[in-house]
Amino acid sequence: MHNPVLVEITRGDLVESRHTGRVVVFDADGATVLALGAVDEPVFPRSAIKVLQALPLVESGAAEAYGFGQRELALSCASHSGEPEHAELAAAMLAKAGLDEAALGCGSHWSLEPRVMRAQARAHAHPTPLLNNCSGKHAGFLCFACHSGIAHAGYVDYDHPVQQHIRDAMAELTSTPLGHDVCGTDGCNIPTYAVPLDRLAHTYARLATGTGLAAERARAARTLIEASMAEPFFVAGTRRMCTTLMQLAPGRIYAKTGAEGVYCAAIPELGLGIALKADDGATRAAEIMVAATLARLFDAADRDLAAKLDKLAQRTLKNWNGTIVGEERPADELRAG
Amino acid sequence: MHNPVLVEITRGDLVESRHTGRVVVFDADGATVLALGAVDEPVFPRSAIKVLQALPLVESGAAEAYGFGQRELALSCASHSGEPEHAELAAAMLAKAGLDEAALGCGSHWSLEPRVMRAQARAHAHPTPLLNNCSGKHAGFLCFACHSGIAHAGYVDYDHPVQQHIRDAMAELTSTPLGHDVCGTDGCNIPTYAVPLDRLAHTYARLATGTGLAAERARAARTLIEASMAEPFFVAGTRRMCTTLMQLAPGRIYAKTGAEGVYCAAIPELGLGIALKADDGATRAAEIMVAATLARLFDAADRDLAAKLDKLAQRTLKNWNGTIVGEERPADELRAG
Repeated sequence: MHNPVLVEITRGDLVESRHTGRVVVFDADGATVLALGAVDEPVFPRSAIKVLQALPLVESGAAEAYGFGQRELALSCASHSGEPEHAELAAAMLAKAGLDEAALGCGSHWSLEPRVMRAQARAHAHPTPLLNNCSGKHAGFLCFACHSGIAHAGYVDYDHPVQQHIRDAMAELTSTPLGHDVCGTDGCNIPTYAVPLDRLAHTYARLATGTGLAAERARAARTLIEASMAEPFFVAGTRRMCTTLMQLAPGRIYAKTGAEGVYCAAIPELGLGIALKADDGATRAAEIMVAATLARLFDAADRDLAAKLDKLAQRTLKNWNGTIVGEERPADELRAG
Repeated sequence: MHNPVLVEITRGDLVESRHTGRVVVFDADGATVLALGAVDEPVFPRSAIKVLQALPLVESGAAEAYGFGQRELALSCASHSGEPEHAELAAAMLAKAGLDEAALGCGSHWSLEPRVMRAQARAHAHPTPLLNNCSGKHAGFLCFACHSGIAHAGYVDYDHPVQQHIRDAMAELTSTPLGHDVCGTDGCNIPTYAVPLDRLAHTYARLATGTGLAAERARAARTLIEASMAEPFFVAGTRRMCTTLMQLAPGRIYAKTGAEGVYCAAIPELGLGIALKADDGATRAAEIMVAATLARLFDAADRDLAAKLDKLAQRTLKNWNGTIVGEERPADELRAG
């Protein structure tokens, strides 16, 4: 593995740590716009493909039947921080299907936002499945099952119809056979499938443009991506990079993180899809990589936006005293135009 | 930079993430026992050389004058988790010099142990300098200054006598000129100096054996290392790797982590010093690297201990539901004997 250094962490005048990784950008016709590192090797996309996992919810008519608006759809594609608004909306989605948090198979944890977590602790709250960052996605799974007359017990299992529907959609969209050989278990207990990184970029270019998709699938994908861009707080949360990126240029950037240093993104107006992974799984590296890549892609079309994205890709590091000690920044290979 | 892959994170049957890094082991006479990666390149050792930073406290007679036992000495070399015992002992050290937490220049944060942090939040506590993981080290700096008749104001600054004493000791022990050109600011606001990784390994071999050191310095180093090994909870805390390693083989392993993926360690009975860094700065990688390296070094001398260390170097990963999803493990290059 000799992927290039794409992110540097400095202290004083020296580079203290380095992140290698790979980045790939495709257009919807399958042309490679950018490729750094071994982009044809597989990756577990983890939560970066939640839009694909939410397709059955929309395509089945469940979302419409339950009256879900853009917030609910955004939450069904979210890795949210477990803030009160997220947990309340996930509970409301479940209630539409006559269910409550007991039906959720994602496991429990505290809010991922430290201030919210401390507020929960002060209020003597406890970790619950509604606070799990995947609760909106799981609520969507359960709503799809209930609306479709599928018994929801065991909905996280590989052989359950919910996971079969997701697997079929994902295999078709990524043009990749998905079976046990490329399957792992995700943090929220559902199957996750390793897919070549470049196919994820191509998939997102197609999702953002509709190119080559059946009309119903194109409509469902557009609905979910537009909902996420319209309600970015419900895709992530306070001070989260996905939310920040989508707030920066409303309707023009779609971005979704995945665990272990993955990001998928799309620029609908340019017809581009992006997929990337930091080799070591670091979130800080993936965040800088996605912001720097977006800046590079917008450079010709919108200099102002590119400059704002460049700022997000270069972060000042402060210590516990507030003293500036270094920075997190894209390496030359990622920055070069 | 093409350091080898030393740690792998798996999911299902696939490797999901990889950490490159470098590891070096020296004996006290300067012979290389193990070298993986570019071990002659510099590294900011960060908190991994707190023993060196605590030498003036002991050599000046301050520790003895204030009646400090092994717990206080361990805390003066600690990156502790801000648990109540740590904060109380740091306050007691300061009180010996007639000071309190207002004198600390390390900055404030919550306990780094999530359960303790939530308990603090429930008790409506706040971040304080005593909870800062470096508060024991800073208390040691202040005690050294007060005992030595040095005005303690500005003790974190490069030109303050406290930092000059530390810099002199570190330069001598690492045989490295230390000036502004290799200086950064650490998380707790004091200077940190980049030193070639192999010189840190050699330094720790000498600290653990006394080889080539003046008698007073050898005694001070042995006192601090023995105190850390005798009171490992006060060097780190609950569920922390430094504490676990030193509890596993009392008096036989010294280990100290530093931020951004650094570890220094020593095996006094084998006369060996270890220094390592995960290129990307990941703590999970550094922890596996140090446990795997210790296992490899003990393999001939103590098979049972080596087996226990191997277990620490290979961790099962569970998701929020408690399902086993993968593992963190040393790569073949690190494991090979």
